[in-house]
Amino acid sequence: MTTTHLGKRRKIIDGLEKITGQAQYPADLNLPGLLHLRPVLSPYPHARIAGVEKEAALALPGVVAVLTGADLNGGRVAHSRSNMLLAGDEVKFAGQPVAVVVAETEAQAADGAALLDITYDPLDSVDDATAALDDAVLVWPDGMPRPDTSMASLHGGSASEEEQRAPSNLHQRQEFKRGDAGKALAQAHTVIERTFSTSRVHQSYLEPHAVVAQPGVKQGEVTVYTSTQGQYVVRSEVAGALGLQERDVHVVPLKVGGGFGAKYGLIDPLVAAVALKLRRPARLVLTRTEDMQTTTPMPEIEIRLRLGADAEGNLVGLDVNASIENGAFVSGHAGIIATMIGGMYRCENVSIVGTELLTNRPPVGAYRAPGVPQALFALESGMDELARTLGKDPLELRLQNAVQGGDLTGTGRPWPEIGLKACLERAQGHSLWKDRGQNANEGVGLAAGGWPGAFSPAGAVCRVDTDGTVRLHVGSVDISGVHSSMVLIAAETLNVHPDSVEIVQGTTDSGPYAPNSGGSQVTISLSGAVLDATQQVREQLLDLAAHHFETHKDDIELAGGHASLKGVPGKTIAIGELARMGQKLPGGPGPVVAEGRAAPKAGAPGFMAQLVKVRVDPDTGHVTPLEAVTVQDVGFALNPLLVEGQMHGGTAQALSIGLYEGQVFADGQLTNPNFMEYTFPRADDLPPLEAVLVEHPSEHGPFGARVVGEPPMTAGAAAIANAIYDAVGVRVTALPLKPEHLWKAIQDRRGT
Amino acid sequence: MTTTHLGKRRKIIDGLEKITGQAQYPADLNLPGLLHLRPVLSPYPHARIAGVEKEAALALPGVVAVLTGADLNGGRVAHSRSNMLLAGDEVKFAGQPVAVVVAETEAQAADGAALLDITYDPLDSVDDATAALDDAVLVWPDGMPRPDTSMASLHGGSASEEEQRAPSNLHQRQEFKRGDAGKALAQAHTVIERTFSTSRVHQSYLEPHAVVAQPGVKQGEVTVYTSTQGQYVVRSEVAGALGLQERDVHVVPLKVGGGFGAKYGLIDPLVAAVALKLRRPARLVLTRTEDMQTTTPMPEIEIRLRLGADAEGNLVGLDVNASIENGAFVSGHAGIIATMIGGMYRCENVSIVGTELLTNRPPVGAYRAPGVPQALFALESGMDELARTLGKDPLELRLQNAVQGGDLTGTGRPWPEIGLKACLERAQGHSLWKDRGQNANEGVGLAAGGWPGAFSPAGAVCRVDTDGTVRLHVGSVDISGVHSSMVLIAAETLNVHPDSVEIVQGTTDSGPYAPNSGGSQVTISLSGAVLDATQQVREQLLDLAAHHFETHKDDIELAGGHASLKGVPGKTIAIGELARMGQKLPGGPGPVVAEGRAAPKAGAPGFMAQLVKVRVDPDTGHVTPLEAVTVQDVGFALNPLLVEGQMHGGTAQALSIGLYEGQVFADGQLTNPNFMEYTFPRADDLPPLEAVLVEHPSEHGPFGARVVGEPPMTAGAAAIANAIYDAVGVRVTALPLKPEHLWKAIQDRRGT
Repeated sequence: MTTTHLGKRRKIIDGLEKITGQAQYPADLNLPGLLHLRPVLSPYPHARIAGVEKEAALALPGVVAVLTGADLNGGRVAHSRSNMLLAGDEVKFAGQPVAVVVAETEAQAADGAALLDITYDPLDSVDDATAALDDAVLVWPDGMPRPDTSMASLHGGSASEEEQRAPSNLHQRQEFKRGDAGKALAQAHTVIERTFSTSRVHQSYLEPHAVVAQPGVKQGEVTVYTSTQGQYVVRSEVAGALGLQERDVHVVPLKVGGGFGAKYGLIDPLVAAVALKLRRPARLVLTRTEDMQTTTPMPEIEIRLRLGADAEGNLVGLDVNASIENGAFVSGHAGIIATMIGGMYRCENVSIVGTELLTNRPPVGAYRAPGVPQALFALESGMDELARTLGKDPLELRLQNAVQGGDLTGTGRPWPEIGLKACLERAQGHSLWKDRGQNANEGVGLAAGGWPGAFSPAGAVCRVDTDGTVRLHVGSVDISGVHSSMVLIAAETLNVHPDSVEIVQGTTDSGPYAPNSGGSQVTISLSGAVLDATQQVREQLLDLAAHHFETHKDDIELAGGHASLKGVPGKTIAIGELARMGQKLPGGPGPVVAEGRAAPKAGAPGFMAQLVKVRVDPDTGHVTPLEAVTVQDVGFALNPLLVEGQMHGGTAQALSIGLYEGQVFADGQLTNPNFMEYTFPRADDLPPLEAVLVEHPSEHGPFGARVVGEPPMTAGAAAIANAIYDAVGVRVTALPLKPEHLWKAIQDRRGT
Repeated sequence: MTTTHLGKRRKIIDGLEKITGQAQYPADLNLPGLLHLRPVLSPYPHARIAGVEKEAALALPGVVAVLTGADLNGGRVAHSRSNMLLAGDEVKFAGQPVAVVVAETEAQAADGAALLDITYDPLDSVDDATAALDDAVLVWPDGMPRPDTSMASLHGGSASEEEQRAPSNLHQRQEFKRGDAGKALAQAHTVIERTFSTSRVHQSYLEPHAVVAQPGVKQGEVTVYTSTQGQYVVRSEVAGALGLQERDVHVVPLKVGGGFGAKYGLIDPLVAAVALKLRRPARLVLTRTEDMQTTTPMPEIEIRLRLGADAEGNLVGLDVNASIENGAFVSGHAGIIATMIGGMYRCENVSIVGTELLTNRPPVGAYRAPGVPQALFALESGMDELARTLGKDPLELRLQNAVQGGDLTGTGRPWPEIGLKACLERAQGHSLWKDRGQNANEGVGLAAGGWPGAFSPAGAVCRVDTDGTVRLHVGSVDISGVHSSMVLIAAETLNVHPDSVEIVQGTTDSGPYAPNSGGSQVTISLSGAVLDATQQVREQLLDLAAHHFETHKDDIELAGGHASLKGVPGKTIAIGELARMGQKLPGGPGPVVAEGRAAPKAGAPGFMAQLVKVRVDPDTGHVTPLEAVTVQDVGFALNPLLVEGQMHGGTAQALSIGLYEGQVFADGQLTNPNFMEYTFPRADDLPPLEAVLVEHPSEHGPFGARVVGEPPMTAGAAAIANAIYDAVGVRVTALPLKPEHLWKAIQDRRGT
């Protein structure tokens, strides 16, 4: 494909406003009469609230109100973390908001919160997955609330089938089966059986959750300014949690300081409720500690894996039991875990069971490629072990079994054309892989990964203004530079300089409709609409120019913001002038503008291969990552600079899951809720990151492009584990790596 | 036409927010860090500025800056009132802004302005039209600045043809001729010759000019929140006056508390310049006195009229000389005056000369049907006198000569199909006309009027949301309830309740493009785009429902926000669900949305006839209006309630021009710049107003609708004059009526 702007490296469009501090995040939005909120979080994982003594806080200058669930919840019961306001009579997890102090300044709100005296009667709690399985204590003795459950229906209404089951902390069990995995494993030449565990990892975006809400003109009308990945989800959450009409909730997405799956209206209902209650604008910006205590990290997952192969190394059986610790509400990771853990390698006999467990911990949520880093930590560690047991090259073994177009995912659907093999082949030729094994205590690990990718219909509007500015009006939220790519599509279609293309950010009122910025879907979903809109506008400009030059549109060409009569120098008119003609011509076509719509038929899955080189200090168990190479099939890189940025970021987070990050709980309490105690890599803790772009085009993605954001997150942890094995022959089965455990294992191995 | 919602009386959509005080006007917009401006206006009509002593003002607490033209103008010379910032070395009219005091509060700014010490050297001034014609003193000795004129080109660039003419206060003279008016009048059976004069009348909207400007992210980028009739004009004015790129000027139109032709960015450049200079948001809300002193009322016009008819009463000649006093810049009323004064009655010999004069007074501007009330005061008084001289019924004489489709306007273009005769015929049957002449000193006056109406291309977006809300995204500004009519068009097309249709107001960035809300053009211009968008959306909904019910779209009907399978009870789906399908269906049509475009081929002129009954007290000259009937061809009343509102408002302002309003100058000074001294009718000064709707459909207007806002303004003053003649036999030739003059004329007549 010959392109002028697409496929070229170009800086992100809102870089200037971001680096100069002028981009507006919710914490920057200072409305007249703005009130400030400070939440008070439960210190107990499970307790009855015996009393809230408000007087001391209310006596403080500037404190406007102290509100509890009795003031705000309106008798509604939360059915998810997102639509939770404040606790009622009981708290279900340490970190649950119990009250909120509202004051004229942030400092006054904080002082008020410190003076708030809440009496708790602690109750027995379910502190981890093991305790959950006991069912000795139930997180939800009456069953977990459901979206249609109000106080009234909970006690008097008809119970659904699920509610009629005996309440249990084992909320749900999902099975995905094909063939007979048990029999196949019993007959296999070689079987690997291991149990892998992972930790809760927090998304740790730079910007904590932050929301401003402003009451509207009508009773029950509210505008929410928020840092979100999806304004329509926020609208639904706020309307649902507060019992408002969706049309009365106006959501304006501001800049997002990192989302990674976590920003879908978590504290928005609470802030909106306060604004409506007090009839004043209100703002809540969580502190880092509050953010880690009360928001939704990725779940702890324990995976028991059995993997069987015949003597030639062909996979014959896969048996997976994934136990997912969800906290107080279920997030639902089983499906995507099954899709990927059973969808990387061809295998006729597969059994995958996912178990969703409830505990008295903060509810979990999505984090970049949710569930897949944990799933592939197990699978790719297992594949490594299988190769070594069979005496095969780990990369060759993967190539031999890797899925391709038409093979099945773990839930039994066929993959479209994909590039897993292409990535493995490219990794095979990389010097890091070819030259491995030269130094003692150093090792190179390989793991493969991928992400199926969501896709949704979307709209987009393209307008040309009289000064030649091309405006793209989009409803998507830009969390990863996607709008910068949309600008290139418009520039390419209209043959204008990208600097003359501007993005107009939509709200829930102004549209256009676009899906959430999650599941790596925005580029796939939005490009078609942008292309549709800009192609219509292109035709409109050609028609107007043909009218102007009294010729046929085939004789017109667009370049550099002008329309010209082909082959006739000087016969040229600026597209802004054509736009002006459209705005003036009586009986003409009307203004130059088009709304594009598109609905992709299928997704554009992205696969990748991760190479990591580490050095292990056998005397301390310390692991130093030395190099990381991410080989990723991006289909077609609309803007290679930004694609590499996604690959670097995803790889960094993936390595961090392997080496550093994990929330630590004791008796239901998060013990490391801040960046002093929560281990997080500094820039110099990470190795040089190399991004190798494979362009194996997707039939469904725009210009062949594939999902980009999530794949590089999926294999890094497993690659680290495999590199450690390559270095010192010790198998890591728990994340994050703990040097003391590794040291012990190295000592044990030396001893044997 | 059978309609469900169109043509039905329905309240204005933003009535609730307006009557509850929640509608947001610029004066309500309180941004953090907002600065307040107080302008200091010249007390002299012409003076050199000898010095500005800032120290005392700057010493006041809260005063941030005192700025003059030297600080803000950047060497640019204003070429119109709208793009004027502050005076340079010289002031050209009393009321011209010379300096601005900027402070943290409005009170501090006012205190600072009171302390500002400006020294003027008064110069000879041109105080009225008579003085202007002398050319003894020139308002612009070097010629009036023009749009492309900068300091540099003014002194060194090439001069255009006009600049090469000798400078004169007679800025421009326009002639419109057909036939030989002089000869025809010399040969006519009866000739009426009179000179009529009118006064400057101020638009006197409830909300004075008000603007908030906020500096943007980039250097030279600014957002302007304003009360305007056209955001694109404001953008051009601000960009032009400040030398900015248009794409860097973002204009957000807020609610408008009355415009009437006057709100097109008059003080916006000044406020934007201050915000950019001080890098803080800034607000200026003019006081009533400032508003009357420094903004743009309608001009004083003197019209010498000669009107000739043959013995049968057929018009044979019309000779008009209109002298328009413009103030310091030319506004350009001659063309529209000619269009209407020469376009009401068939006449083969017409000569119209319009003369635009410059004086040292505030520049004039547009006011509802600009120039036409003055023009028709002359023409319709003349027609009345002609009828009486010929002994003919004034209504019959008009009917006999009235233009119809194909007859010419005063500038020689043919009218499309129009309803002037239909209005006269309806007036003829009204009891007020039929029963006139019963009481001494009471009289009934008739005058006819009309407005050709502008028209422009426009766009509009229609979206259906998942809750069934239909959103119309429009770029027009609602100054007269036009958006309420757009809601009805959408409701009619989609067969939904009007309450489920919401308007999303566009900005210069978000679009859609729409013309200014002036010239009564918005309904005519926008309806086509709204209809186009909603019809496309209707088809999309039918397609989705057909897909859902697995049938053909012809079998689907839309009603009450649902799509149903015709004749199959229970087979129904909400349009919100169809919208959800559009947002979800892989490979489907995409979200339910369409951008409509339309460009009317021609306008839809609206004519009318005005009947007014008055009682005259011959002992005092006091005139009491007793009844007013406005018979207006509206083509088709999209919403009769709002059409009547326009007719009432226009009639009230027209009667007020006749009876009460006029700015009074002495030595170039406005002597009545406030509502204590400027005569303005109270509600009980006005008679009962009856609106009679004639529906003579336009071929170009939507559903036959015609321009509505301006016609009722055009004939009231003349009707008052004719009623006075009918009552006491005295001809009023100067507006507004002055009881002392009328008393004198009555005494003189008694004496004769």
